[in-house]
Amino acid sequence: MAATRYDVLGIGNAIVDVLARTDDDFLVAHKMPKGSMSLIDEAQARLIYQAMGPATKASGGSAANTIAGVASFGGRAAFVGKVKDDELGRAFTHDIRAIGVAFDTPPAQDGPTTASCYIFVTPDGERTMNTYLGAAQNLSPADVIDQDIADSSITYLEGYLWDPKDAKEAFRKAAKIAHGAGRTVALTLSDSFCVDRYRAEFIELVKGGTVDLLFANEHELRSLYETGDFDAALEALKRDAKLGVVTRSEKGAVVVGAGKTDAVPVFPVQRVVDATGAGDLFAAGFLHGYAKGLPHTDSARLGALAAAEVISHIGARPLKKLSDLAKENGLKV
Amino acid sequence: MAATRYDVLGIGNAIVDVLARTDDDFLVAHKMPKGSMSLIDEAQARLIYQAMGPATKASGGSAANTIAGVASFGGRAAFVGKVKDDELGRAFTHDIRAIGVAFDTPPAQDGPTTASCYIFVTPDGERTMNTYLGAAQNLSPADVIDQDIADSSITYLEGYLWDPKDAKEAFRKAAKIAHGAGRTVALTLSDSFCVDRYRAEFIELVKGGTVDLLFANEHELRSLYETGDFDAALEALKRDAKLGVVTRSEKGAVVVGAGKTDAVPVFPVQRVVDATGAGDLFAAGFLHGYAKGLPHTDSARLGALAAAEVISHIGARPLKKLSDLAKENGLKV
Repeated sequence: MAATRYDVLGIGNAIVDVLARTDDDFLVAHKMPKGSMSLIDEAQARLIYQAMGPATKASGGSAANTIAGVASFGGRAAFVGKVKDDELGRAFTHDIRAIGVAFDTPPAQDGPTTASCYIFVTPDGERTMNTYLGAAQNLSPADVIDQDIADSSITYLEGYLWDPKDAKEAFRKAAKIAHGAGRTVALTLSDSFCVDRYRAEFIELVKGGTVDLLFANEHELRSLYETGDFDAALEALKRDAKLGVVTRSEKGAVVVGAGKTDAVPVFPVQRVVDATGAGDLFAAGFLHGYAKGLPHTDSARLGALAAAEVISHIGARPLKKLSDLAKENGLKV
Repeated sequence: MAATRYDVLGIGNAIVDVLARTDDDFLVAHKMPKGSMSLIDEAQARLIYQAMGPATKASGGSAANTIAGVASFGGRAAFVGKVKDDELGRAFTHDIRAIGVAFDTPPAQDGPTTASCYIFVTPDGERTMNTYLGAAQNLSPADVIDQDIADSSITYLEGYLWDPKDAKEAFRKAAKIAHGAGRTVALTLSDSFCVDRYRAEFIELVKGGTVDLLFANEHELRSLYETGDFDAALEALKRDAKLGVVTRSEKGAVVVGAGKTDAVPVFPVQRVVDATGAGDLFAAGFLHGYAKGLPHTDSARLGALAAAEVISHIGARPLKKLSDLAKENGLKV
């Protein structure tokens, strides 16, 4: 097989996060399902921002956070996603390149602004998200460069790509190229409401072999198989997926594949300040380890470490260099 | 004396902070004097941003941070400062209004962009700042509304206003109106390099009675009186100022006035994450207490509390409601 240029290439919605703290009453008053991601239009975005407290802005986007994490572990990483050539889009581009990620998707010159996600962090550290997709809606198959995908050990895709109109075509195109080149295709289910919207298609992707490696959290997995019983959902995953990685918040993570089940505990944190990015960064650690050929349990430990770093501060991307953090904790990267 | 509408009205440069972590070598390589504020032009701003790691954006500006702190303590607060009607300017406006501050200075419709401050936070928590003044350069006396000043118990001004070309005229106008209405005028020296640039004028403001209440840190005070001897500088301050408040990092703060000297210790923090805003928030607590007629030591304790909150996280404005924090710590607000 040809040598790779990238360990992981991610395709996702390119989003700038607008983060503010709030209390639970605010979520209730604004009918925001706690812990979820809701899609909003421009008018709703304006109203939500008006009601929001003082906010900080930081680059986000689920797959983009994961890819930033891979780069922070020292992995060779690339990202495909659509911003506009505006203030937010330039900030997104700066941040992802500054962490060492190759990001060359041409920005939109007109049309809607760069995507924003309005994130409310409650005192328990949980985050509740409202996404205005903006320019991210215009990601198209033309933005997927064949050679980049063929040169990537893993192509990683977010389930949220089912929301913008043409992005799933970009996803299917990428998966086909990746498999054509003998590479691995990974998917995250993203959010349980997202699974609700596209359940049948997601199951087909996993069962049909379009996806080799599936990431889900407990809620998403139960939503996928429409059961309240975690063990039943995990059994179904074992049956359907080549390799599945399920995160369970404070209960750690489970890796299922090839008839084996491995559990890995969480890394202890002093306090969950902001859960934003926890799943994204878990995926970063696992993907980095997987690309390096580490055993699944070692990869999952890197995931747990990266998740612990990101939930101990505001914002969805690591503030510490994850390769250093791994070494400090005696983990191989 | 007529009733007041505001406890504290602040006039300052309206700035959005762009914050990133870095190491000491970066500061050396880029010739940035650690802990200082340097003025940069647009071309330098572009180069610095290119060299910067992934960054978060949050509203800043010295006096603006202070005024946000006063509002967070529950004080009636107003701010005067110039943004442009652009993405950054709208974020600044949102954030300061969202915390409860009256902010009605009309934004510039053309000319340079809203001011940015590129802040590098080193592992010791120290911050090093590079400010592109942009639209803040165009703050003018016309932006100072006589009735707003006359209706404010304290008008608070930042020494940085000496940098933009017309802002010091706005400052002098405001001081005159405030005194005409029998109100208090407060000034912060802002930065030791800023003191270097305008030493004679600052001394004249204090000695001549334009300023009733002076805030300085140890470095700024020593720079003002051109001495390495802190005690000598403090003696000079006692002689020149009606009331002086000097912050000394981990050594706490000293209040001098009416022949009395009071020392107040710091509030303990687990770790200094980011020193950005420490002085600004100390001033917030003191000004809030002063406006409420508290004894100076009680006001200084509110200052120490607010400073401790802001240095325990990234960003220059409080993340917790300071009135709640004061109550939790048994302090009157």
